[in-house]
Amino acid sequence: MSAYKDKDPRINGIKTTIRVVPDFPKPGIMFQDITPLFLEPKAFKDSVDIFIERYQGKNISVVAGIEARGFIFGPSIALAIGAKFVPLRKPKKLPGEVISEEYILEYGRDCLEMHVGAVEPGERALVVDDLIATGGTLCAAMNLLERVGAEVVECACVIELPDLKGRERLNGKPLYVLVEAH
Amino acid sequence: MSAYKDKDPRINGIKTTIRVVPDFPKPGIMFQDITPLFLEPKAFKDSVDIFIERYQGKNISVVAGIEARGFIFGPSIALAIGAKFVPLRKPKKLPGEVISEEYILEYGRDCLEMHVGAVEPGERALVVDDLIATGGTLCAAMNLLERVGAEVVECACVIELPDLKGRERLNGKPLYVLVEAH
Repeated sequence: MSAYKDKDPRINGIKTTIRVVPDFPKPGIMFQDITPLFLEPKAFKDSVDIFIERYQGKNISVVAGIEARGFIFGPSIALAIGAKFVPLRKPKKLPGEVISEEYILEYGRDCLEMHVGAVEPGERALVVDDLIATGGTLCAAMNLLERVGAEVVECACVIELPDLKGRERLNGKPLYVLVEAH
Repeated sequence: MSAYKDKDPRINGIKTTIRVVPDFPKPGIMFQDITPLFLEPKAFKDSVDIFIERYQGKNISVVAGIEARGFIFGPSIALAIGAKFVPLRKPKKLPGEVISEEYILEYGRDCLEMHVGAVEPGERALVVDDLIATGGTLCAAMNLLERVGAEVVECACVIELPDLKGRERLNGKPLYVLVEAH
């Protein structure tokens, strides 16, 4: 956690938009619903701006966004910092040749795919998703990028569920989050 | 088609990024792959900028993006024009109470959902997706917005497949596209 973030007065306005929906998508899961953030133009812009301020001038050439909510944040960051946007998608969604990574979710099993040729060896990549739970999705995303020779600079999420200890699964990669939820 | 768009020198740079993948996701479908656009920061920014220039100052309070590629364009437009972003999602993805619309795709059948309470009666909405084929998805999106009393101002897509006559299915609603593909 950076001191910068904790002192940022915009964070509280972001945090208060997030609502918890119990027992979604399965009984026992307390789902962090980020969609109310998108209904507040000021708070939504603040969240994107904080990421842009952090990643501007960091020589990042790839912003990789994880389907589907990573698509809501990644492109705005990529456009602002002049990076390409690479969608990491669920199986059978990308039409070209892909590489795949399976992973285990908080509630089930899934797979991410990336287009071959989208990212080149030596590129510096930022991975973006809305939320980190157990960290499985971010690990799969990082594996895809590293398999093609890119360097993952950081993972960025709006929400972290620290009780699930996903941060510990990222093999030491830095994780930047705006809000912690318990 | 606006004369403005046809004369915009940025359009050609956008158009040349789009690649056709034959027989995806089913034999006989010529899939318009927009992902190479995202790999070209200049062309990607041009595409978003053209939409922003068109919708700024039009008193639009809602940008509704259709899962998943509508999420790649919609938020940047919403943030720039100060509107809320409302994701229209595939079934069982939104955790709150939803309304649903079924529709027929170029290759199959699907359903879109919208959170109840996300859009209020009288709001002016823009619907955003990457592509219009037969128009079924956009119709479902417009129905969701109109069922809660919003006014759909326009639908905006990057690519139109005019041979599929989707434009004719939009009940006279204006459609704005950057590129036509045959």
